[in-house]
Amino acid sequence: MIVQMKKYATEKEIKKLVDFLTERGFSVKDISSEEIKMFGVVGDTMNLNVSHIEAFEGVYKVHKIQKTYRLASRDYKKEDTIIKVKEGLTIGGGSFQIIAGPCAVEDKETMIEIAENLRDNNVKMIRGGVFKPRTSPYSFQGLGIAGLKMLKEVADKYNLVVVTEVISPEQVDLIKDYVDIYQVGTRNMQNYPLLKVLGAQKKPVIIKRGMSATIEEWLLSAEYVLEGGNPNVILCERGIRTFERYTRNTLDITAVLAVKELSHLPVMVDPSHASGKYEMIEKLSLASLVVGADGIMVEIHPHPEKAYSDGAQSLKLHKFNSLVKEVNRLKKVL
Amino acid sequence: MIVQMKKYATEKEIKKLVDFLTERGFSVKDISSEEIKMFGVVGDTMNLNVSHIEAFEGVYKVHKIQKTYRLASRDYKKEDTIIKVKEGLTIGGGSFQIIAGPCAVEDKETMIEIAENLRDNNVKMIRGGVFKPRTSPYSFQGLGIAGLKMLKEVADKYNLVVVTEVISPEQVDLIKDYVDIYQVGTRNMQNYPLLKVLGAQKKPVIIKRGMSATIEEWLLSAEYVLEGGNPNVILCERGIRTFERYTRNTLDITAVLAVKELSHLPVMVDPSHASGKYEMIEKLSLASLVVGADGIMVEIHPHPEKAYSDGAQSLKLHKFNSLVKEVNRLKKVL
Amino acid sequence: MIVQMKKYATEKEIKKLVDFLTERGFSVKDISSEEIKMFGVVGDTMNLNVSHIEAFEGVYKVHKIQKTYRLASRDYKKEDTIIKVKEGLTIGGGSFQIIAGPCAVEDKETMIEIAENLRDNNVKMIRGGVFKPRTSPYSFQGLGIAGLKMLKEVADKYNLVVVTEVISPEQVDLIKDYVDIYQVGTRNMQNYPLLKVLGAQKKPVIIKRGMSATIEEWLLSAEYVLEGGNPNVILCERGIRTFERYTRNTLDITAVLAVKELSHLPVMVDPSHASGKYEMIEKLSLASLVVGADGIMVEIHPHPEKAYSDGAQSLKLHKFNSLVKEVNRLKKVL
Amino acid sequence: MIVQMKKYATEKEIKKLVDFLTERGFSVKDISSEEIKMFGVVGDTMNLNVSHIEAFEGVYKVHKIQKTYRLASRDYKKEDTIIKVKEGLTIGGGSFQIIAGPCAVEDKETMIEIAENLRDNNVKMIRGGVFKPRTSPYSFQGLGIAGLKMLKEVADKYNLVVVTEVISPEQVDLIKDYVDIYQVGTRNMQNYPLLKVLGAQKKPVIIKRGMSATIEEWLLSAEYVLEGGNPNVILCERGIRTFERYTRNTLDITAVLAVKELSHLPVMVDPSHASGKYEMIEKLSLASLVVGADGIMVEIHPHPEKAYSDGAQSLKLHKFNSLVKEVNRLKKVL
Repeated sequence: MIVQMKKYATEKEIKKLVDFLTERGFSVKDISSEEIKMFGVVGDTMNLNVSHIEAFEGVYKVHKIQKTYRLASRDYKKEDTIIKVKEGLTIGGGSFQIIAGPCAVEDKETMIEIAENLRDNNVKMIRGGVFKPRTSPYSFQGLGIAGLKMLKEVADKYNLVVVTEVISPEQVDLIKDYVDIYQVGTRNMQNYPLLKVLGAQKKPVIIKRGMSATIEEWLLSAEYVLEGGNPNVILCERGIRTFERYTRNTLDITAVLAVKELSHLPVMVDPSHASGKYEMIEKLSLASLVVGADGIMVEIHPHPEKAYSDGAQSLKLHKFNSLVKEVNRLKKVL
Repeated sequence: MIVQMKKYATEKEIKKLVDFLTERGFSVKDISSEEIKMFGVVGDTMNLNVSHIEAFEGVYKVHKIQKTYRLASRDYKKEDTIIKVKEGLTIGGGSFQIIAGPCAVEDKETMIEIAENLRDNNVKMIRGGVFKPRTSPYSFQGLGIAGLKMLKEVADKYNLVVVTEVISPEQVDLIKDYVDIYQVGTRNMQNYPLLKVLGAQKKPVIIKRGMSATIEEWLLSAEYVLEGGNPNVILCERGIRTFERYTRNTLDITAVLAVKELSHLPVMVDPSHASGKYEMIEKLSLASLVVGADGIMVEIHPHPEKAYSDGAQSLKLHKFNSLVKEVNRLKKVL
Repeated sequence: MIVQMKKYATEKEIKKLVDFLTERGFSVKDISSEEIKMFGVVGDTMNLNVSHIEAFEGVYKVHKIQKTYRLASRDYKKEDTIIKVKEGLTIGGGSFQIIAGPCAVEDKETMIEIAENLRDNNVKMIRGGVFKPRTSPYSFQGLGIAGLKMLKEVADKYNLVVVTEVISPEQVDLIKDYVDIYQVGTRNMQNYPLLKVLGAQKKPVIIKRGMSATIEEWLLSAEYVLEGGNPNVILCERGIRTFERYTRNTLDITAVLAVKELSHLPVMVDPSHASGKYEMIEKLSLASLVVGADGIMVEIHPHPEKAYSDGAQSLKLHKFNSLVKEVNRLKKVL
Repeated sequence: MIVQMKKYATEKEIKKLVDFLTERGFSVKDISSEEIKMFGVVGDTMNLNVSHIEAFEGVYKVHKIQKTYRLASRDYKKEDTIIKVKEGLTIGGGSFQIIAGPCAVEDKETMIEIAENLRDNNVKMIRGGVFKPRTSPYSFQGLGIAGLKMLKEVADKYNLVVVTEVISPEQVDLIKDYVDIYQVGTRNMQNYPLLKVLGAQKKPVIIKRGMSATIEEWLLSAEYVLEGGNPNVILCERGIRTFERYTRNTLDITAVLAVKELSHLPVMVDPSHASGKYEMIEKLSLASLVVGADGIMVEIHPHPEKAYSDGAQSLKLHKFNSLVKEVNRLKKVL
């Protein structure tokens, strides 16, 4: 941590700050020049609060250099984390997994049609929302626990793993028997009570990036789950909000590379939400593969124009078939 | 709603769409020109889903014109909503109220010192967090329900109203006896399970704007509470995330004016989070007053450099005294 | 400047970097802790290039602490700069000046109507664009030098100062006899050839903030003009681009406060471009006044619906009269 | 164009607007419903100004549906534009070209070293800046015309095409004999006087995307050049500014797909500026290839830690060799 002082900070102000820091076991090194008065704070400053230090009189600005997360960092664990979803199915460490399914679980026939398609494509994980965090209270809010049971029944029949979104801490207990992977959506990336409950679970948790979150904030959300005792965290880039409105969001493909440098955790990509346009999904999936993502999460639907939500970004099944084929072809080459 | 077709949309594609819409009671008017093929969808399109219509083959883009919220809109209710907090204390409709207190409730002596100061300034509402949504799991997470009881005790002694943040639906029941106004923080603006629970309460709810939320999304969050049956919603602008890093956030003062046009709900300003700098709070408060905000929510602390959180943006008590004096002076003139 | 090394940086890599820095006269202090290897670079690092140092092997990240601008900074000059526009007319140092006029100069009658109105309101500076930087090549591009001569003629008649936008370095010579204050628009804030030419002039230059520029970048643009020898720089906040689309831009009122801390230069506000809505201009003007801006720049027009550009944000003359009255009333109180 | 009226717009206000539009040859269709009063304006509304119409009394908001650009649009020209740079060298239409070179031209030996490397890699186009638009006036501003002549001499020797940035209209005449492709940088995307001069040239122009420009604004900048008579426009995505600071910018890979849909013009990617980190360049180049970009523009340098600028994002020559090899390998597969 670097503490930059105001130009006219007094000796007394400086002493008060230095005393505070040394009493807490830090050593303080003067690295001032003629132009600027500043100190290096030496020690484990991870939990030293910037705003706290900036509240001292005479302080101009505090620059935090040390990372604010630990368990999620590549410094803490050098090798890639590989998450075992079930016997013979892992995420991370070089494989490229596909999770697919409708935005929301609707009816059984549709789910069966989708599950068959996944099986035919050798895709092992089905997604489907039953608690939908919708911007408008008048939009379809999901089928709830009944929908999840239906999803689980279909998934079991086709030997698929169930991925579903959870939007409130008290839901975890309700749904834990029907879920293989919990998904935390973009609006809940900083829902800390939820993250704490998931930190006490054993099953994997996918944390989508908040729509205007920095990578550091995203890794801190992962840190909540890791610190709670659950090491099975998967990150998922799903597009960030930018000025551009032609696409629903902007896929931050660079974030995949950044996470791979900063963290040992697997990182997937959701090209459906990132673009909001089904025409773009296949190419964005291939881009995710070549930059080294650990997989993709895709919305598919047999009849997007009948879907209760997210129709415009849902891939028809025959287009999904083509996507899987292209991904497999490219995987072989890389 | 305007449906813009692709240049080469077929008659069959158009028919399928038009049939879908007319079957649902909408009338469809052709407003195409040589350059562009498009239709106006006439009827109550509020709940017609953009993504659903965009999923039809041949559709290029859907433009939603009608507002997506109803109860929160100025069209629905022309006069300003005035919220009665308790006998003799209202928010909205021309008064300019001040809510002040520490970021987090810490210890009783500090709370008393603050409460006395509020009383002396004729400020009626005290804030203090006990469930803190902190970006890092290693930061102070608040004193919980014990802290709230302490806050309530102090508030009662000084005849103050209690405002505190709630971050999870199951907390509402726990805290409802100790709270006069619920606060929904920026990270929970789209925590819909929480908003639904608050919609079933009677006490007022302050909804802070999400840090990169549009005004429409913010009003839709208010709509969740209104639609649930609780008409006592207060909006609070607290700064949005921008590229600028000199200040913690960027106060969107224009949003106050926009909300006043679009909605009948009161809107307050939080200059502490907006700037992150105590030196700016007084002037931003005055600016909020002149544009017509219904009040401010300010972080104050007798010893910011000892505060557990947000020290840099906490106003010392004597500076808060000056702020109140300046606000009162300006109020008289306007 | 702080140089943070990679965890596994070698002694040889460190030596190479340290040698490079010490050869250039800097001293290097080790402020590493167990968690993090880093060095403070002591000396005048203003012109030391971050990207240059980050290119050294073993370097993880460079944190520039020292300001990147000098002449524009409050450290360089403590007192507010007051710019003399002409005898008896200054900008900065506590006065609150108004510049007003149409977006574009159109015809003589309109200009006369506006000029008369300014005179009646005791406003001393008229603005009007003749080289319009329009997003579309098909939009009205301005009347050019002929328009400027007309503006000058009218201004002289009513004893007004002329403010006009310049968008290309070679225009400066063409227009310098007809202009009292040059305006650099948001799209040209980083047009460095233009800033260099203006640095060689004596007349004042208003630099509008780039629509997604940081305050530091903005001050660096001012630095170009100052460094060129022209001390008469006025900054103008005109709204930044954010996600919000209800208003054209978002007025960053906090930027006024930030500039006042960081720099000695005057800073004005353009509420017309900031909001894009004439209904908001008066209140945003008052907010600018109370936070301490040095004035406003407003678009006015007798018949906005006939204006060639920016009609929606142009104030009708009678509304401008009211604005001036309100500003004067508030000025008296502050 | 859709004109949405205020709820309480009067008959007189509506008549005034409708008359204005019909007098100009548009037909106006009423598509109001109970909830909303609005009109479709039928005709070629491309040049109808939104702000102009919004200035009419009673108008709430204008929604422009028709594209604002014509010559740049895919509707205007269905087939991909293929730009002939010289005999046997084209950009667009399926080839994937590489432009490489240093950020700035520095000295002859370095340029020769780079040029040899390009030749060995069968890369045909060399870039190098001589007029550098630097954020700080104290940073290296480029060698100017002398540097360009040196670049041209080296390029001729190795049979390379010269790409250089131009930052001011009057430079075009000075440099036209030494340049094969003009580059317009991110800060000059809306430098319209410059775009107009380039519209009168015959040689190709690369237009980088403004750092917070929308795709529509970017295409409108292309429209300036096209409308001026120069059909040889190449777009280049170079990363946009977002909240993320770990990378210099955020590569908007989705923009490549969007441009391919909206326009017939070729679009390249600059992974160096997009990420600011040399470690990311290779993978981002491969991603650009798989989504269908027409090429990349990369900064390379034999000794990045000695480069005058942009060292951190410059690829060493042996890493560039590897990039070219990987690109070629992947090209074969696709």
